[in-house]
Amino acid sequence: MHLYLVRHGIAAESEEYDTDSERPLTKQGDRKTHKIAQRLYDLEIQFDLILTSPLLRATQTAQILQTVGLSSKIEESAALAPSGDIGHWLKWYKQWQEIGSRSLTLVGHQPDLGNWAETLLWGRSQDALILKKAGIIGLILPETGSPVGRSQMFWLTGPKFLLC
Amino acid sequence: MHLYLVRHGIAAESEEYDTDSERPLTKQGDRKTHKIAQRLYDLEIQFDLILTSPLLRATQTAQILQTVGLSSKIEESAALAPSGDIGHWLKWYKQWQEIGSRSLTLVGHQPDLGNWAETLLWGRSQDALILKKAGIIGLILPETGSPVGRSQMFWLTGPKFLLC
Repeated sequence: MHLYLVRHGIAAESEEYDTDSERPLTKQGDRKTHKIAQRLYDLEIQFDLILTSPLLRATQTAQILQTVGLSSKIEESAALAPSGDIGHWLKWYKQWQEIGSRSLTLVGHQPDLGNWAETLLWGRSQDALILKKAGIIGLILPETGSPVGRSQMFWLTGPKFLLC
Repeated sequence: MHLYLVRHGIAAESEEYDTDSERPLTKQGDRKTHKIAQRLYDLEIQFDLILTSPLLRATQTAQILQTVGLSSKIEESAALAPSGDIGHWLKWYKQWQEIGSRSLTLVGHQPDLGNWAETLLWGRSQDALILKKAGIIGLILPETGSPVGRSQMFWLTGPKFLLC
């Protein structure tokens, strides 16, 4: 099972919006996220499902991934909102895993995505992973059983190292 | 301090050579490693020093990194040979760190490089990092004190995701 963790693109400053959840991608964030999504498509990456934080800058990022053809399915998950509980996601994943899917992407926020990756790799987190906006982490999760402390990482990159 | 860990390129099969240390890069390994090195140069990456395993496939990889202009200096370190002791390297690093360098590359082997990275990130290793041949790991080490369990990772990639 390949699990990709994608951080939302560059978003508007919070001063301009009443709530953090309303902050959209900036024009630059939208453009750069499209480039990243196209590059992932060119690398022949496909997702069975895009699971995204319900915040606007994340759902916009998820829609861009879908638009270029990386996946036909998007769902929202409150667990992917800032400070979301990986425990809730793990319960969802245990059931989702049983339908035999091979590739899943989570679109969300930092430091949560980095901490979730550390938890899957190490069973604990200490902010050791730097994930830039529109950056991506790639993990391989075990075929069976809990992925906590039993996963492997094959990819961690910011946009700078990914775009040609 | 930016620390890059680079795995040697594709090498000849061991059957063809008396000792493992004599295995050279294959033509494909040489070509691909040159492409990776050029891409790193295009990303404006520079190393103050390339420290390499003394094994031929590693020294050839290190020389390719130097040839494209990534660094003017190469040194060999027995600690970077397969199953080398990170403790020896840490002693060397403690002294090297004092000259105020900003960027170092280690050229070596798996699973050692991945395990060293895990040790610098989390204080121990469990084969959680997958590093392909001619792949690269990028870490940020603390300005002062031991880097063990106190470093951060900003990059982990195989050639496939790096070459355009």
